Amino acid sequence: MAIRTVVWGENVHEQLDPNVRALYPDGMHAAIAAALGQDAGIDASTAVLQDAEHGLSEARLAETDVLLWWGHRAHGEVSDDIVERVQQRVWQGMGLIVLHSGHFSKIFKRLMGTPCSLKWREAGERERLWVINRNHPIARGLGDYVEIPNTEMYGEPFTVPEPMETVFVSWYEGGEVFRSGLTFQRGAGRIFYFSPGHETYPIYHHRQVQQILRNAVNWAHNPAPAWADIANAPNVPIDKAREKLVQKGARLHADGEEGFR
Amino acid sequence: MAIRTVVWGENVHEQLDPNVRALYPDGMHAAIAAALGQDAGIDASTAVLQDAEHGLSEARLAETDVLLWWGHRAHGEVSDDIVERVQQRVWQGMGLIVLHSGHFSKIFKRLMGTPCSLKWREAGERERLWVINRNHPIARGLGDYVEIPNTEMYGEPFTVPEPMETVFVSWYEGGEVFRSGLTFQRGAGRIFYFSPGHETYPIYHHRQVQQILRNAVNWAHNPAPAWADIANAPNVPIDKAREKLVQKGARLHADGEEGFR
Amino acid sequence: MAIRTVVWGENVHEQLDPNVRALYPDGMHAAIAAALGQDAGIDASTAVLQDAEHGLSEARLAETDVLLWWGHRAHGEVSDDIVERVQQRVWQGMGLIVLHSGHFSKIFKRLMGTPCSLKWREAGERERLWVINRNHPIARGLGDYVEIPNTEMYGEPFTVPEPMETVFVSWYEGGEVFRSGLTFQRGAGRIFYFSPGHETYPIYHHRQVQQILRNAVNWAHNPAPAWADIANAPNVPIDKAREKLVQKGARLHADGEEGFR
Amino acid sequence: MAIRTVVWGENVHEQLDPNVRALYPDGMHAAIAAALGQDAGIDASTAVLQDAEHGLSEARLAETDVLLWWGHRAHGEVSDDIVERVQQRVWQGMGLIVLHSGHFSKIFKRLMGTPCSLKWREAGERERLWVINRNHPIARGLGDYVEIPNTEMYGEPFTVPEPMETVFVSWYEGGEVFRSGLTFQRGAGRIFYFSPGHETYPIYHHRQVQQILRNAVNWAHNPAPAWADIANAPNVPIDKAREKLVQKGARLHADGEEGFR
Repeated sequence: MAIRTVVWGENVHEQLDPNVRALYPDGMHAAIAAALGQDAGIDASTAVLQDAEHGLSEARLAETDVLLWWGHRAHGEVSDDIVERVQQRVWQGMGLIVLHSGHFSKIFKRLMGTPCSLKWREAGERERLWVINRNHPIARGLGDYVEIPNTEMYGEPFTVPEPMETVFVSWYEGGEVFRSGLTFQRGAGRIFYFSPGHETYPIYHHRQVQQILRNAVNWAHNPAPAWADIANAPNVPIDKAREKLVQKGARLHADGEEGFR
Repeated sequence: MAIRTVVWGENVHEQLDPNVRALYPDGMHAAIAAALGQDAGIDASTAVLQDAEHGLSEARLAETDVLLWWGHRAHGEVSDDIVERVQQRVWQGMGLIVLHSGHFSKIFKRLMGTPCSLKWREAGERERLWVINRNHPIARGLGDYVEIPNTEMYGEPFTVPEPMETVFVSWYEGGEVFRSGLTFQRGAGRIFYFSPGHETYPIYHHRQVQQILRNAVNWAHNPAPAWADIANAPNVPIDKAREKLVQKGARLHADGEEGFR
Repeated sequence: MAIRTVVWGENVHEQLDPNVRALYPDGMHAAIAAALGQDAGIDASTAVLQDAEHGLSEARLAETDVLLWWGHRAHGEVSDDIVERVQQRVWQGMGLIVLHSGHFSKIFKRLMGTPCSLKWREAGERERLWVINRNHPIARGLGDYVEIPNTEMYGEPFTVPEPMETVFVSWYEGGEVFRSGLTFQRGAGRIFYFSPGHETYPIYHHRQVQQILRNAVNWAHNPAPAWADIANAPNVPIDKAREKLVQKGARLHADGEEGFR
Repeated sequence: MAIRTVVWGENVHEQLDPNVRALYPDGMHAAIAAALGQDAGIDASTAVLQDAEHGLSEARLAETDVLLWWGHRAHGEVSDDIVERVQQRVWQGMGLIVLHSGHFSKIFKRLMGTPCSLKWREAGERERLWVINRNHPIARGLGDYVEIPNTEMYGEPFTVPEPMETVFVSWYEGGEVFRSGLTFQRGAGRIFYFSPGHETYPIYHHRQVQQILRNAVNWAHNPAPAWADIANAPNVPIDKAREKLVQKGARLHADGEEGFR
């Protein structure tokens, strides 16, 4: 069965900025989804901020294996309730790929627990992503590095937790570096942050960037059933303990009471 | 200079439950602060939920090196604004020690980005904490293990991110295990989660538990100046780049404009 | 194409000890290979210490995707050259699953760089492996825990580096705990250490243990081409630099010279 | 008490190469020790390859808190027995700081378990080390970055395990990047790898490099007593189990027998 993938796009810059619209006439989300669709094992659809529930209803998320997230100027317009819902699905096992300015999205900051800040410069300079482990599934089919002729610089310090794996580190013409591809695990969900993707350059038309995104979807997909009750804190009654127990000392809770949260 | 330490207590169970009050007549926070005060290098004070701003004003937090957090039934009564404030201070370098039922506190869940759920049982059973690295600063002065005669069981899965270091793993009489001492780094702040501490048992009067808390304060203390602007995302103007750059391609932002967030 | 898997067995206890032979008349390696073979996607063969080159010729290793390793009393009889060869293949991308007493095998100690020591007791006591992330590929199809009626106790501290992921933590009847399933990455190779498997108990006939081993083979398999030159340290000549460079300062090496190692 | 620190130098290039000798007339080890000695809390001495036992007798190592290691062309001349001895001391708690070409030293490869390979170029180009966490003890007193006017390029992939912390990432004039400051924990010992330090440039005379080395010594120092028996695997007799146990099933070992290794 194909990996059910939703590309979420903020879809604002494409409407407001003629440069962006010229590069992505149907929106960046559409360009990304088309790139994913070149992999027969990926079934890619799109959702945008302007859709009802931002296109991310409970029902749709329940049927989503991997979600990609691109947002920038409208981070603040994303509903907190829907961010909470997406976070729950990541915990349950949905993969999440956070793109470029999504470093400051509500969903990424909530999953990292850190500022997710960085330095930036919009000079159209050259970026070179060096591959740290060429056998990592996300680096499949790349060479030693990927060159992006015109990019927005994102510079360290990138204030995220130490990652599970450092997949790419970027060099910039202007003198900075950035850990441009990082993996994280949160609950049952795998997360990949990938920094290239500024809206005024044709980065999502770049052949190798598209390959990386397809690789990342395959990597982030967890075929296990959703861990539906991951956020629960179940009581284990004394008579259900795996080893025989006798109650000792004082208790706070009566039998069958819920815990506090 | 002594490590300026604040022990934050919810201070509710001590008022409502005679068993808890009998164990901690001045509140658990006071007992913990007294234990910390046995280290001449620690200057321990207390704050409680009922204080103005929960005792955690901007000014006080700015002068706090390490914060300990004990909460349980009143997690929901902690102000979101103050949680945000504490999180910022952790990012800037304040150490944070989260105790027992604090696994479900707003501040811990926000810093972890995960459910922080677990299994539990209130049977007064025996717990044995095994020391993983006896030379870790938090394990200073302990032997191979610490035994707690009566404890609340906290069982795996404990849904936190993979820690920086696993310091203790617990065995329970009823058959479960728990990673009972874990370290994390978030921004400039060091975090230690320590699971023993159920309010109906005299756990904070346990000599070795007190030693662990003193050790943890020393470990979590970061003497560097606060990283005050850690959450900012500064622009690096083209003419301030470390290497000479010429503007190429289209831009979204005019000179001197702020980034979106 | 099936995952080409070799189960390496020391094959000594089965010859010397009637209890072990009764449990594993064809050797533990054969029992493990048979269990793996129940997965149509795994092509399992065996190799033993007594084979020429311990059954691990260059040619065979080159065609091995995943290697399982069980050794105990004859660790010292394994040739250093062959250990070196196996290590190189792991670096190049071969998966490695180290079983039970293999914690003290030459290959595991070399890949970890630590003592890999632990406590032990041979009492036939009960072990319960708790699953930390039920959606981890290695935990597929298990419930909350796996119970092993008779086991050798392996107790913390287990002196390995902090793992990439803690998959299982074990509880023992006698009061100890152990991180019984741990993942590591070394070069392009994925490594899984799994502690159950004492030779005097029928552990490799346990249905869920067999499931874990099949899961682990699937997880450890890296389909990327071998990273053949991973141990090389290539010079990048000045005229091949990605950015234009002019030689400055003194040099140690003449053009085309090899580096030292 | 001051941190007892030994700077180990190969001391070969200084004898063979007039450029190196001009920069370091008393050897690089002496220059590094002098830089460390500017911190009143560090008691720095030196040892060289040519000394008896390379200057690293059992007695001296037992009194060493932190060891720095610089080697290059004579890696192969370092005695395996002494490497083994140093590794044991790291496991027991001695800090280790591995410098520059020490990435290919026997001791570093043994502690990492990976190839520790990288790309290199000797062009005297500019390197800029970006600080990832400015509040990390090793980054104390630095600004956003450190610039080294002339350096040997070390390029990714640097084939080490994922570190505990990424402290510095380097940018190079010629277009590469490198994770130039990484921390690891192995047993009770803390390890810091720091890449700048090519012998034909005055890098150990650089004020900020000297500061980093002093910081690293302070960070790597573990004041706990040596974990002397860390490599042992003690048996826990049944009658010494923390919980009451009755022997079940067959055993391999008689009472009091040593385990295999």
